[in-house]
Amino acid sequence: MIKKRIELARELILENELDAMLITHPASRRYFSGYSPDDGQWGESSGALYLSHTESFLLTDFRYQQTAERECEYVATRIYKRGLAAELADITAMSRVKRMGFEPGGMLWSWYQAIKDTLEGVELVPVKSLADSLRVFKDAAEIKAIEQSLHLMEGVLDKVFAEGITGKTERELALKIARRTEDAGAEGVGFAPIVASGPNGAEPHAEPGPRVIERGDVVIFDVGAKLHGYISDISRTMVAGGLEAADGKFAEVYGTVQRAQNKAIAEIMPGMTGQEADDIARQVITDAGFGENFGHSLGHGVGLMTHEAPSVSPRSDDPLLPGMVFTVEPGIYLPGWGGVRLEQMVELTPAGCRLLNKLDRFYDLSG
Amino acid sequence: MIKKRIELARELILENELDAMLITHPASRRYFSGYSPDDGQWGESSGALYLSHTESFLLTDFRYQQTAERECEYVATRIYKRGLAAELADITAMSRVKRMGFEPGGMLWSWYQAIKDTLEGVELVPVKSLADSLRVFKDAAEIKAIEQSLHLMEGVLDKVFAEGITGKTERELALKIARRTEDAGAEGVGFAPIVASGPNGAEPHAEPGPRVIERGDVVIFDVGAKLHGYISDISRTMVAGGLEAADGKFAEVYGTVQRAQNKAIAEIMPGMTGQEADDIARQVITDAGFGENFGHSLGHGVGLMTHEAPSVSPRSDDPLLPGMVFTVEPGIYLPGWGGVRLEQMVELTPAGCRLLNKLDRFYDLSG
Repeated sequence: MIKKRIELARELILENELDAMLITHPASRRYFSGYSPDDGQWGESSGALYLSHTESFLLTDFRYQQTAERECEYVATRIYKRGLAAELADITAMSRVKRMGFEPGGMLWSWYQAIKDTLEGVELVPVKSLADSLRVFKDAAEIKAIEQSLHLMEGVLDKVFAEGITGKTERELALKIARRTEDAGAEGVGFAPIVASGPNGAEPHAEPGPRVIERGDVVIFDVGAKLHGYISDISRTMVAGGLEAADGKFAEVYGTVQRAQNKAIAEIMPGMTGQEADDIARQVITDAGFGENFGHSLGHGVGLMTHEAPSVSPRSDDPLLPGMVFTVEPGIYLPGWGGVRLEQMVELTPAGCRLLNKLDRFYDLSG
Repeated sequence: MIKKRIELARELILENELDAMLITHPASRRYFSGYSPDDGQWGESSGALYLSHTESFLLTDFRYQQTAERECEYVATRIYKRGLAAELADITAMSRVKRMGFEPGGMLWSWYQAIKDTLEGVELVPVKSLADSLRVFKDAAEIKAIEQSLHLMEGVLDKVFAEGITGKTERELALKIARRTEDAGAEGVGFAPIVASGPNGAEPHAEPGPRVIERGDVVIFDVGAKLHGYISDISRTMVAGGLEAADGKFAEVYGTVQRAQNKAIAEIMPGMTGQEADDIARQVITDAGFGENFGHSLGHGVGLMTHEAPSVSPRSDDPLLPGMVFTVEPGIYLPGWGGVRLEQMVELTPAGCRLLNKLDRFYDLSG
């Protein structure tokens, strides 16, 4: 697997007329080496992968040496003592590297400057994100890992719903979901669970807070697991106390989102751009009079990162192609009232979307 | 507080002959605005703070609007629809900005390029990290927040130790610590807890795994909480079953680390460089014959980030000054055997280090 990926990366190095490629984005680094550590915090790095036509190194520091040696089967570990730039200077000088590619979205400006100032006679060439060009196509093992992550998360969520949400705080439910996800065998959550109740649901990325969920509240759950490195991403919108507790507006809003989602999953086809796919759902929501209240994209790719290529958005000209895995998650957000978001994950096949979700516990309000 | 900080930032804008400053690092963004969201994942942003001599905007997207409006008392929220660069182009054109500063360590190369390509006639000027120049000095409220975070974490750890560690897996203990930290009222852990037992302790950043801790195992715990945004950072090394279960080597290794730590805390004084401070502990460890086995720095600043300025390292010429808060954490790592790390947090005062830790539950092996 890793071996084949390294070959693909080397083809990319050749295509871009590079001598080598520096991979600093943690997901790409893992994808091409097997090295799993996250970067500690904003702006820190637990290592970089260096690939040339003949060499491959996982460059890291003393703190990660054992992990790197254990996890990297096809890549040699090389420990830097004076930092990444100095180590790269040694390697590129030895190997007479003239052009080294890097990922613009995986590189801090400060790292770039340090490397540029340290490496003499090496041109640094921004290369289109490896996420876009290679990681975007999932192989069978990756799709299996994503499905496992998704089904684990579905099971957890289903159980939490069965135990009831009324009378609990958003934060309580978020913690419960996170802990159950860990206990179910995931490495952890894929991202901090969102539990947004009542008016809080109008903000798509609300932090779970002390608000107590009451009967009749509309509550958005947006949760995901990380399993074998792969993320799942699910959104469900529930009424505390069940459908009969909902206010008059709920059926209209939920039904609209549901119709938008069903239509998008049925009609998205390979070859469409992200914009064309997004438009299928957006049109349904706009026709229902809620166009202004669907402020985010229809979906995004998922894999080693929660958000990665492809972008299924009104601003994306990227074609959607077989082998891509992405979310379909229309939403409607009404300030003061709250919101509804429904999110499924699909694999695009030559015949259209294949649903990866197994549990279809939705209210049926698509009318 | 925020008002005063904005004034300080404006002085910095003046000093650097800038018209404005763009603050994208999440900790700096919070420090100068009160806006608390983390960035979602590597390479994503939940917003940017724009400060000029007369204007201040928290620029973000629709997903974070309510949070921004609620949290930013002295900064106006401005929602971008076509992305940060386009919004900045409008603002800088309107305000005739010619020179805009940015934080090199808070800026992705891809963001920089997008902003540079979009803003006509605006020079982008790298400004020394705001973490180094302003955030490095903690005010009374910040020190109080750090102490609260630290004492919460100490209480949790103490209780986990009292309940016993023998027979549990590293991962079990790491989860227990994380959950107790949340239950004790923290926003969450400040960083993923490290529990490294037996030979795993030889790697300073080992991931907690399935290894079962047995009587006599030496176990490093490195844990921290996040409370009111502020991080705490504690390392303790315990022998499962207590001192009497330890092997012959333990007392020598632990005692050396302890002497190094005590000496450093007693002797670090304002005006020393990071290197000079580091050297106090390093000399003790080197004299004991373990110089090669102390592969990391003596310490680092802590605040809104787990690792921030100042750097207390052999490579740091930065002076340590009153008002700085940092860790003192010597360690010895022996491949095959394991490791010992002891970490305290101190505030530097004109008279030297003031210990912020309250619970001093160490073995006394300093001889």
